[in-house]
Amino acid sequence: MTREEALHTLEEYRVSIDALDLRLLELLNERTRVVEEIGRVKRAAKLPIYEPRREEQVFENIMSHNGGPLTPDALKRIFERVIDEMRTIQRIRMETGIEASQDGDS
Amino acid sequence: MTREEALHTLEEYRVSIDALDLRLLELLNERTRVVEEIGRVKRAAKLPIYEPRREEQVFENIMSHNGGPLTPDALKRIFERVIDEMRTIQRIRMETGIEASQDGDS
Repeated sequence: MTREEALHTLEEYRVSIDALDLRLLELLNERTRVVEEIGRVKRAAKLPIYEPRREEQVFENIMSHNGGPLTPDALKRIFERVIDEMRTIQRIRMETGIEASQDGDS
Repeated sequence: MTREEALHTLEEYRVSIDALDLRLLELLNERTRVVEEIGRVKRAAKLPIYEPRREEQVFENIMSHNGGPLTPDALKRIFERVIDEMRTIQRIRMETGIEASQDGDS
């Protein structure tokens, strides 16, 4: 493979990465919206916000469907980060009471 | 909202989360496969593996398309984790020389 061929191929792969990242971005924001809805329902029904057993289920779902090449450890660290960031956003929502009007009629 | 209604709604949201996670899983593994291909091409063409400017482009692509609710900081931390895990997998591939046969005819 010449240097020029390599650079051309790399450019194609980068277009793929950028497209994949935008799909990841969309799914991550969609997941965050659902997590926010879950928080609203839990607060309206006075249910506990943090449920360690549910978190285990989330990891089991991912691990049991992983065909690689990401290793279980790598996936665990990525999803721990994802879950942690969404938990932070939930906490900020609670503290700032942004959705007070939505909770009002519960 | 009664407790029963809340539990039913939560169950529906959890089904959504589990489905979103499987789509995220698929995209993350697909991204890893492309990153592995990029590593192969770079090694075959003796190009530098690490390119900080390209990494900046990746973040610019994500940030410029983010409609929320994830904040830029949250997204940055998630994608830093994703990129870091994929870099680790590339390094392991290089160290173990798993793809020696594929590099052979370059």
